[in-house]
Parts: sequence; structure tokens; C-alpha cells
Amino acid sequence: MRIVALAGGIGGARFLRGLLAAVGPQDEITVIGNTGDDIHLYGLKVCPDLDTVMYTLGGGIHEEQGWGRTDETWSIKAEMKEYGVGPEWFGLGDRDFATHLVRSQMLTAGYSLSQVTEALCVRWKPGVRLLPMSDDRVETHVRITDEQGTRAVHFQEYWVRLHAAVDAEAIVPVGADTAKPAPGVLEAIAAADVILFPPSNPVVSIGTILAVPGIREAVAAAPAPVVGLSPIIGGAPVRGMADKVLAAVGVEATAEAVALNYGSALIDGWLVDTADEASVAAVEEAGIACRAVPLLMTDVEATAEMARAALALAEQVRR
Amino acid sequence: MRIVALAGGIGGARFLRGLLAAVGPQDEITVIGNTGDDIHLYGLKVCPDLDTVMYTLGGGIHEEQGWGRTDETWSIKAEMKEYGVGPEWFGLGDRDFATHLVRSQMLTAGYSLSQVTEALCVRWKPGVRLLPMSDDRVETHVRITDEQGTRAVHFQEYWVRLHAAVDAEAIVPVGADTAKPAPGVLEAIAAADVILFPPSNPVVSIGTILAVPGIREAVAAAPAPVVGLSPIIGGAPVRGMADKVLAAVGVEATAEAVALNYGSALIDGWLVDTADEASVAAVEEAGIACRAVPLLMTDVEATAEMARAALALAEQVRR
Repeated sequence: MRIVALAGGIGGARFLRGLLAAVGPQDEITVIGNTGDDIHLYGLKVCPDLDTVMYTLGGGIHEEQGWGRTDETWSIKAEMKEYGVGPEWFGLGDRDFATHLVRSQMLTAGYSLSQVTEALCVRWKPGVRLLPMSDDRVETHVRITDEQGTRAVHFQEYWVRLHAAVDAEAIVPVGADTAKPAPGVLEAIAAADVILFPPSNPVVSIGTILAVPGIREAVAAAPAPVVGLSPIIGGAPVRGMADKVLAAVGVEATAEAVALNYGSALIDGWLVDTADEASVAAVEEAGIACRAVPLLMTDVEATAEMARAALALAEQVRR
Repeated sequence: MRIVALAGGIGGARFLRGLLAAVGPQDEITVIGNTGDDIHLYGLKVCPDLDTVMYTLGGGIHEEQGWGRTDETWSIKAEMKEYGVGPEWFGLGDRDFATHLVRSQMLTAGYSLSQVTEALCVRWKPGVRLLPMSDDRVETHVRITDEQGTRAVHFQEYWVRLHAAVDAEAIVPVGADTAKPAPGVLEAIAAADVILFPPSNPVVSIGTILAVPGIREAVAAAPAPVVGLSPIIGGAPVRGMADKVLAAVGVEATAEAVALNYGSALIDGWLVDTADEASVAAVEEAGIACRAVPLLMTDVEATAEMARAALALAEQVRR
């Protein structure tokens, strides 16, 4: 079975680990990773979501934190502080820096982000084919109004420095309008037997991937069933601050509203948590098959069970 | 008193620490640092000699090693090995990487190496004005013949990877012929009250600085006395492998031969170690005032005593 999954960072990566545990060795998983949260720091290209997927599936992730490397050291961060070079709010450990150095050197040498990602994965062996959504630069910016006035900040600044404590007025994936899907992305979607939307952020992760011209259309046109898992349980994000960015796009932070926002033109099936069983009927009314199952990724086995439920729903809605 | 010193890496840096201990707070020291051993690694500009001077005088050097940072961690090096990205033979610690990241980011932003060096020194406060010999790229290459044939390797590869175990057939400071002295270099030489050649490598450190068009001429024309300290004691380099590169330029590895190679057109005074007292007469015969004093930089006080001897000789030869 050829499975395509769109993925953001922590939530997507953890779901993929469960998915890998749920499928067999003959199944092929292609992950289309969000690069809208990429940021240039110290002259280096940092791809937090791609790396979180790569480290998580490759066994290098800091488990408790969910991002960054295990057994990390922080010498560079300490030195940057001594040099007075920011941003202090972004946490890049020394091991993590090595990844960004290798990536940046390859990009400067002329390799595409797809090629670089493939090269990095030679080491990490994530067990999936990891593709960036695009080789072109896309950076999600967030419009906010604070004491400095109305302005756009990089998504990472909004998320990490401001902890999404200020209202997001608009989410703009800068560069997405002219970005092209990375090689293999549209082909993988077209050839997929199942397409999954893990419980990643529907706006700044899945939404950004879908904002690359051609990807949303390819998913909508794909013969494969498309099944999503709600990142919202009981009216709140399982982790992160998805409610803040949902508000910016006028979507309520409920499992039902997120499903309807994707819409039946895009998704065929939707999993909500058992806590949201009451919303199943409304989602089905909108033409999306819906089931309520436990959606807390408490461990790999619980997550694998979620993946099995998603794959089972895909079989039920297969056209 | 305005003192100008040309300096390479470890030997130069240690001498400068003694010089700082020997002079008063009203004395101004300008250091013209060798950049011929600079190397680009992982897309970053690494300036080993400038950094060794900066770290040594700023209190951040790894004392026993003589280069690199104290309390260093090596996470990036370990990661690079996992990624299969070389060179493995070059030791860049994580703290050291921070310096190269800041430098490279500033260079990419359009600052000159002089400006970057000044900015880095804001943190390190080395107590001297540290100028790179040039803002232009100069890289010392060494011609060797080994099982791979006759070829040129970067000086760092010759020095660090090959440990100078292969004969150096030629030393070529690539780019030096079109390099310009960095801003302030010629002015400092012209305005100096004393010019010192620390016991740095006469070929790949002092020699490379002098290879930048205009610097040798400025030193020769300077009204200030020029005094050098022999890096060779008893026919062998005090540290490093200066004999190997001296052979490449046809100079014997003796205190006397190094003095005569600089020549009386360039230097007015020369200090040899007491072990080389026998060579004093020959050096003086060549028109260079010469004294034999202990030249082992065993500690800061012994080194300060060397600096005092150099300054005293400068007074004696002042024209």
C-alpha cells in the first residue's frame, strides 16, 4: 500500500511513528513535510518540521521536548549570548546545528532542499520517504498588533517568542503563491492508495502545504481516499496553540469546524476523539465519513491504533 | 609607545600575552594577524590565527592545546562524523563554531574581515588592536609529492592532517599577490615606535603577512626599529614544524639563517636563545644587532622578560 501523509512537526512526527508501527514492511509511506516554518538563522537554513519528522522517526529526537536532539549540548547558544547575537528565544542545540550546517552547505553548493533532505535521511533512515512540500522558499508570517503597532512576524517568532499570546490577525505563507511542489510530491499524491492528514496544525502545517499551488488540487483530484485526524479534542488543541491560528482564519477550535474547513471536496473521512462523539453527525452531514476513536498519542501503540482506525476508515470510504 | 607586532597563531599569541604584561597601560599595541591559514569549512570562514590571538589574549583559549576554546564541547564534530561529512582531521569545537558562525554571517552581510574582527573583539577585549593582514582572501597552499602525485594542499591539510610529514616543495600564499593590506595596517606600521616579529613561523605566518604587497615595503621603510625573536632554538623549532616549511624556501632551520633571510633591510635587531649564543656574531656581521637571551615561553613572566629584551634592543638600535 502506498500511503501519503502531509505532516507538520511534533504532532505529525508522532503520528507517523504510530503509522509505521501499524503498517507492514511492504507498505510505502511518503511524507510531504511542511517547510513554511523554516527560518534562516546565523546564515543557516533551519527546517524545524522536516527535522522533527527526521529525528523522531530516526531515533534522534528529544522525547520529552518533542523537538530537537537527544543528548544535546548548548555551547553555541551560550556563546551567541556572549557575542550578543540573537535571537535568544530560538533554541538550537549543537547537534541540531550540525544538521543545519550540512543542509546549508549543500544548498549553497546548489543542491535542492529535496536532495538535501534525501541526503540527511541517508543517515537517519526514517523508514519513510520524506519530501519537503516545495524546494522554493516559503515562510509563514503572522500579522499581529501589539505595543509596536501592526506588523508581520515570522511564524517562529509568533510561536516561540510570543507563545501565540497575541492574537494572530492573519497567517500569510509568504512565497507560497509562486512556490512549486517539490519533485515527487504531485506524483506521490496521484499514485497514493491512501492519503492521510495527521493531527498536525490545520492552518500553519497542513494548511501551508495545501497553499502550495497544485497540492490542494492534487489531493482533491486523487483517486485515493483522504482521511484526517482531528488535532482538536474537546474544543482545545491536544498540544500547541492551534486555536490561536484557527481564529485568524475564522475557524472555531473544534474537531467539527476543522473538518468542515477542509471540506468534503478535500477529505473523505475524519476521525474525532471519543470526547467529540457528539460532532460525528454534523461532520457526516457535510459529506465526510466520521468516526470517534481515542486520539491521544500517549504512546506508540495508542498512536498505531489511531493510524489503524484512519486506514480502516479509508477502506470504508474508498470510492 | 605604539608597538606593532606581526603575529601567527600559538607562538605569536603567547608572545603577545607576555608583551602585554611587559608594557604599561599607556602603550598601544597593534597586532597584524596572519590570515593565510584561513580555511572555509562547512560553508564557514575559519580564521585560526586571528582566533588564537583573540582567545589567548581574551582568556578563552584552551591553555594546554594552545588553540581552540577552553571548556569546549564536540557535539558538532561527532554529528559530522555520523553524517559522513569531513574533514575529520580538523578540530572545530562547538564554542569555536559559534565564532565562525558569527563571522561568516557578518561577512555574508557585507562586513569586511577587519570589521568582523573588531566586532568579535568587542567581546574578547584582547587588550590589543587586532587587524587581519588583509580583508582579501589569501590561502596558503603547500606543494607536496606523495602517492597521489605532485599536488597543492591547503596549509591546514599539510599541517594538521599530514603533520608536515611530507616534504613541502613550495609554499604559495594564493591570492596574496593581489591582496591589499587591511585598513589601518600600513598606517600603524608607519606610525609605530617599535615593530616586533614575535617567534611566529617565519614562512607561513610572518612570511605570509609580508607577502601582502605593501606590507614588507612599509616595514622596511618604517622609521621605527624592527626587532624579531627567533622561533628556532638550537636548530629546531620551539614548537610546530617550522623546519619543514623553512626547507621549502631554502632556509636552514637555525636562528641565524632565519635572521639573515629577513635581512638587515627588514629587521634591525634579532634575539636568539642563549643556546644559540654562538650565532650572535654572524647575525651582527650581517648588519643586524643581535642578543642572546632565554627564549622559551615557559610562562607569562618568562615571556614578558623576552618582550622586555626585544623592546630594550629596539631602543639600542633606534636610528
